[in-house]
Amino acid sequence: MRLSTGFVRASGYAYKVRRVLFAVTRGKVEPKEVIRAAAELNQHIFKRLQETGVKKEDVIRVTVPFGISAGRITWKYEGMEVEVYRREEEKNLAMAMEEIEERERALDERIRELENLAVQLKSLSNRMMEEIERIKEEHTSLKLRAEG
Amino acid sequence: MRLSTGFVRASGYAYKVRRVLFAVTRGKVEPKEVIRAAAELNQHIFKRLQETGVKKEDVIRVTVPFGISAGRITWKYEGMEVEVYRREEEKNLAMAMEEIEERERALDERIRELENLAVQLKSLSNRMMEEIERIKEEHTSLKLRAEG
Amino acid sequence: MRLSTGFVRASGYAYKVRRVLFAVTRGKVEPKEVIRAAAELNQHIFKRLQETGVKKEDVIRVTVPFGISAGRITWKYEGMEVEVYRREEEKNLAMAMEEIEERERALDERIRELENLAVQLKSLSNRMMEEIERIKEEHTSLKLRAEG
Amino acid sequence: MRLSTGFVRASGYAYKVRRVLFAVTRGKVEPKEVIRAAAELNQHIFKRLQETGVKKEDVIRVTVPFGISAGRITWKYEGMEVEVYRREEEKNLAMAMEEIEERERALDERIRELENLAVQLKSLSNRMMEEIERIKEEHTSLKLRAEG
Repeated sequence: MRLSTGFVRASGYAYKVRRVLFAVTRGKVEPKEVIRAAAELNQHIFKRLQETGVKKEDVIRVTVPFGISAGRITWKYEGMEVEVYRREEEKNLAMAMEEIEERERALDERIRELENLAVQLKSLSNRMMEEIERIKEEHTSLKLRAEG
Repeated sequence: MRLSTGFVRASGYAYKVRRVLFAVTRGKVEPKEVIRAAAELNQHIFKRLQETGVKKEDVIRVTVPFGISAGRITWKYEGMEVEVYRREEEKNLAMAMEEIEERERALDERIRELENLAVQLKSLSNRMMEEIERIKEEHTSLKLRAEG
Repeated sequence: MRLSTGFVRASGYAYKVRRVLFAVTRGKVEPKEVIRAAAELNQHIFKRLQETGVKKEDVIRVTVPFGISAGRITWKYEGMEVEVYRREEEKNLAMAMEEIEERERALDERIRELENLAVQLKSLSNRMMEEIERIKEEHTSLKLRAEG
Repeated sequence: MRLSTGFVRASGYAYKVRRVLFAVTRGKVEPKEVIRAAAELNQHIFKRLQETGVKKEDVIRVTVPFGISAGRITWKYEGMEVEVYRREEEKNLAMAMEEIEERERALDERIRELENLAVQLKSLSNRMMEEIERIKEEHTSLKLRAEG
């Protein structure tokens, strides 16, 4: 298998790696392992970017082969490729990627808001179950949760 | 403390004991223990009703003192009182209690329906959390559940 | 058709009439009409109880024939029967009905609590729809609500 | 005010216009009017792209000044600017924008899934209200919805 970040602003490669890895390995690997493997790869990429003198406004594209065995992701670093597109040379690309980053922040905000509502929903749904259980206990002959 | 069933049809004393015990001990005893203690008391009452030749259409009223210690209910059977009102002598009382039993069955049905909806709500709320987590994983930079 | 309140404490006949009427006419008559018709009948019963000198602790049982036509309930007052059981003569019945009234108040409280939760759920569910619509508007190409 | 699409693939400008317009006018204009105004502008852009011989793989950027008065959006077409970046000349930009389009389709799918759940939630929440109302009608003395 092979992970490709696609074009991404150097400032945002780490999250892009994680996002793509989640999409590519869905159903095959546990979330914790995706997070671990992404963090491991990101350290390698980070070193390479430092060596190459990449700035956060530059655009990069990283490709790495990997394998999965027993639910674990193993990076084949020898096959890793890092392409760098300097802002000076690819001005429009750099600007476009900056715009993308900004829109992603806006989406983050909306999804965070939605998650807050979903957390409230979960709590409300639990309180309803409790209240109905209490009604069952004190006012009905229905089978109770504690009866198993 | 003291449990009193109030007037109840002999056919329905067991649930009445449990309901009243839940109401009286709320916040002091775990549901499992309420169920256990009610079952224990109900066996005693059952024997007494058999000895007395009570029929299911008769109306009874049971009072029993009890104590709670370390989350456990202990019945003081020596103080138990069982009053019996024969249908032949208290015809209107018997009929009224029969009506009550019927209305309780109707309520049971409604609460069961409501519980079904609440169970669906809980499941839906879990699926929403999963879906939002997936969006977070694949499309955002937000903190994930697996990051703890 | 025929409405029978069953045994009920004189203090609580009005709600009992309404409850039974709702159950008996479900699916045939609009709630507003049930409420109207119950109120109308309750006035008649009230007058009769005053004439008979019934006290709130007494137990009564009311039966009235009625018809439904074009979604409207018509009481056939000429067939109305009101039985009265004086507390002095039916002490146990009166006490049993008093207990029932008390348990109904306890149930009322629980159902009110549950309704509060359901109202919160409805509001939360609306806010989720709004939030998702906003995400659709600003971040997707999906069909919007305002597109009909 | 001024709408700027940012860099966008020619194939996807119409949705981008709508998305940006929703974000920029939030709280000031009704959704229906945003949809109408976006459609109107998109027709103008479409004509311009045809005249210029733009292909769907090219990248464009459109800027248009507009005003809002009485809840209505008026485009100032005389100030409209359409920049075109041909795929042949800006290969990386074109590829990056193609990737973006693909990720947006993936997000669409997730949000559609989420909306399905939210619609189910709304329906479930309505059924709960109905069920609780029925319990109130048939088993309690609580104030009913139809009592206003």
